[in-house]
Amino acid sequence: MRNICLVIEYEGTNYYGWQIQKRYKTIQGELLKAIKKVTGEDVILYGSGRTDRGVHAIGQVANFNTISRIPVSRFPYALNAHLPRDITVKEAREVPLEFNAQFCAKSKVYRYTILNSTTPRALFRNFAYLVRSKLSIKNIRNGARYLIGKKDFRSFAKDAKEKINTTRAVKRISIKKDSEVITIEIQGDGFLYAMVRGIVGTLLQVGLGKIKPKDVKKILDSKNRRLAGPNVPAKGLCLISVQYEKIKGYPHHN
Amino acid sequence: MRNICLVIEYEGTNYYGWQIQKRYKTIQGELLKAIKKVTGEDVILYGSGRTDRGVHAIGQVANFNTISRIPVSRFPYALNAHLPRDITVKEAREVPLEFNAQFCAKSKVYRYTILNSTTPRALFRNFAYLVRSKLSIKNIRNGARYLIGKKDFRSFAKDAKEKINTTRAVKRISIKKDSEVITIEIQGDGFLYAMVRGIVGTLLQVGLGKIKPKDVKKILDSKNRRLAGPNVPAKGLCLISVQYEKIKGYPHHN
Repeated sequence: MRNICLVIEYEGTNYYGWQIQKRYKTIQGELLKAIKKVTGEDVILYGSGRTDRGVHAIGQVANFNTISRIPVSRFPYALNAHLPRDITVKEAREVPLEFNAQFCAKSKVYRYTILNSTTPRALFRNFAYLVRSKLSIKNIRNGARYLIGKKDFRSFAKDAKEKINTTRAVKRISIKKDSEVITIEIQGDGFLYAMVRGIVGTLLQVGLGKIKPKDVKKILDSKNRRLAGPNVPAKGLCLISVQYEKIKGYPHHN
Repeated sequence: MRNICLVIEYEGTNYYGWQIQKRYKTIQGELLKAIKKVTGEDVILYGSGRTDRGVHAIGQVANFNTISRIPVSRFPYALNAHLPRDITVKEAREVPLEFNAQFCAKSKVYRYTILNSTTPRALFRNFAYLVRSKLSIKNIRNGARYLIGKKDFRSFAKDAKEKINTTRAVKRISIKKDSEVITIEIQGDGFLYAMVRGIVGTLLQVGLGKIKPKDVKKILDSKNRRLAGPNVPAKGLCLISVQYEKIKGYPHHN
């Protein structure tokens, strides 16, 4: 038995998210079909986490166990031959059996892309959220500072039940502007459902001047989802990378 | 009568190139349909130049004359409302009647994108040419130096008839590498048919070690298309910008 770890890139536009569903095309579903064709096996595929409908990834990580004898270096080629062109396996490595892409994940980096322009751009139509009003990067940066650290992010989560633990650690928020393209990159030890889109939606209101930067702290403390800004659309969101504890043999660490 | 100049971005994947055709969808054809819907007029739309099937643009320039009274600032919104999402008008300006997007063009910048990786990437599937063998950036840069200046580019053109003038001035070739993505940007006063794709195809052979950098000069001097490398695929090519002589009122200059 071998444990195979994949790094996957996909455009989420034409899929109903990561998680397999009976009636709809999903990323996990397409991968499982390709793995079945290559190995003949019905495996369990553990993703680092779900991505919603329309969300993209350049560094999703997933693993599965197999008894097939295909050399691990052949997996990307073999799987890509059976995958649609908008899903690609970039890398495959054999990892220790105790590695699990979901439970061993230490942190993740998400990037949200905003096109701050009065007119749309064809090449960004599925990858950025168009905001026509001028955004203040300075205000966004000042607001984002209140979100760094281990905090209760209940105000930014969707459908968080009262009993669940909504404390997460946000390690870094980097805001970059390159001409009319603004990217907000967030690294955290874990994210609640729709948390990144809630945070970006709130920071957008700060950038528009509708929420004061210092009020981000008030929103956080309120633990009331209704005080935060509306969620931004899925298409601007991309899972950039997943970080893991040092596990011998795991690709990203020694 | 007003002369309206547009800056257009498009993904060429699903079009048969720029130039209008009876049976096939083209960029110019879609723009003319949108202009007709907005102004009611059958105009002549001058593009800075044609782009081939599958080639993209982020800064194509085109102009047309109109007697409509729509404020020029409304044109992007009005046209985008009637255009498919993979073609967008980014800018519209009124320009002097003597401005013509094709004949007044002084130079153009094209960018070719190569994915130099052993595995494909979903997000680059329509925008980069996958080259699995390792490329030497140093060799590509050394080979490219022979192409700078006013020279006869007959060896790099497709279907160039004997009588036509194949001398063009290449002002700049910049080669950049960002991890596994290599871009080759070429600025010239004009380009022969498939010239950029012939040049990049040749530089690829240089990068692969199949042609020596100094042999690029021999290929240039031979004026023989068969000595140059094969054309690279259209999908990696993008028209970045068009430069114009200073014309009062033209958007890109004072």
